Amino acid sequence: MSDLHIEIIGLIAATFTTIAFVPQFLKIWKKRDASGVSVSMYVIMFIGICIWFCYGVLIESIAVITANVVSGILQMFIIVFTLIHRNNN
Amino acid sequence: MSDLHIEIIGLIAATFTTIAFVPQFLKIWKKRDASGVSVSMYVIMFIGICIWFCYGVLIESIAVITANVVSGILQMFIIVFTLIHRNNN
Repeated sequence: MSDLHIEIIGLIAATFTTIAFVPQFLKIWKKRDASGVSVSMYVIMFIGICIWFCYGVLIESIAVITANVVSGILQMFIIVFTLIHRNNN
Repeated sequence: MSDLHIEIIGLIAATFTTIAFVPQFLKIWKKRDASGVSVSMYVIMFIGICIWFCYGVLIESIAVITANVVSGILQMFIIVFTLIHRNNN
């Protein structure tokens, strides 16, 4: 199997795991309600995503890099939104 | 940086992203309540995890394989538990 085919498999995997995460993101975004969301857990997840990104760069994996850039942006939005929302209340 | 060091970075990343997921798992498990859990999203996530696992095997990444085996087992428990719980009600 060529490297290109392998990366395509990785990107398909990334698409599935990212799609599964989007409804949670939209729910928080639309309802403007992040209650029940544990910020500390999202921060731990975000740190993990940053390390995964570094790992992806080190092993030169396009799939790992792409997946973690997209997830990282979504997680960052949730963390910032949750903190702004809490300060406003 | 040696391959061993790179894999350790990947395993640290895996530890963070898995730890962040555990409280959600424990909450469902302890409360015996999976309401608000979308089974379809967990199934999509589980498919993604299975493809990530295949990708990990193809690129021979111990970190990707380990992370997805652990996450896969946790997700499978949630899916099975949610379905059993719904059938009992």
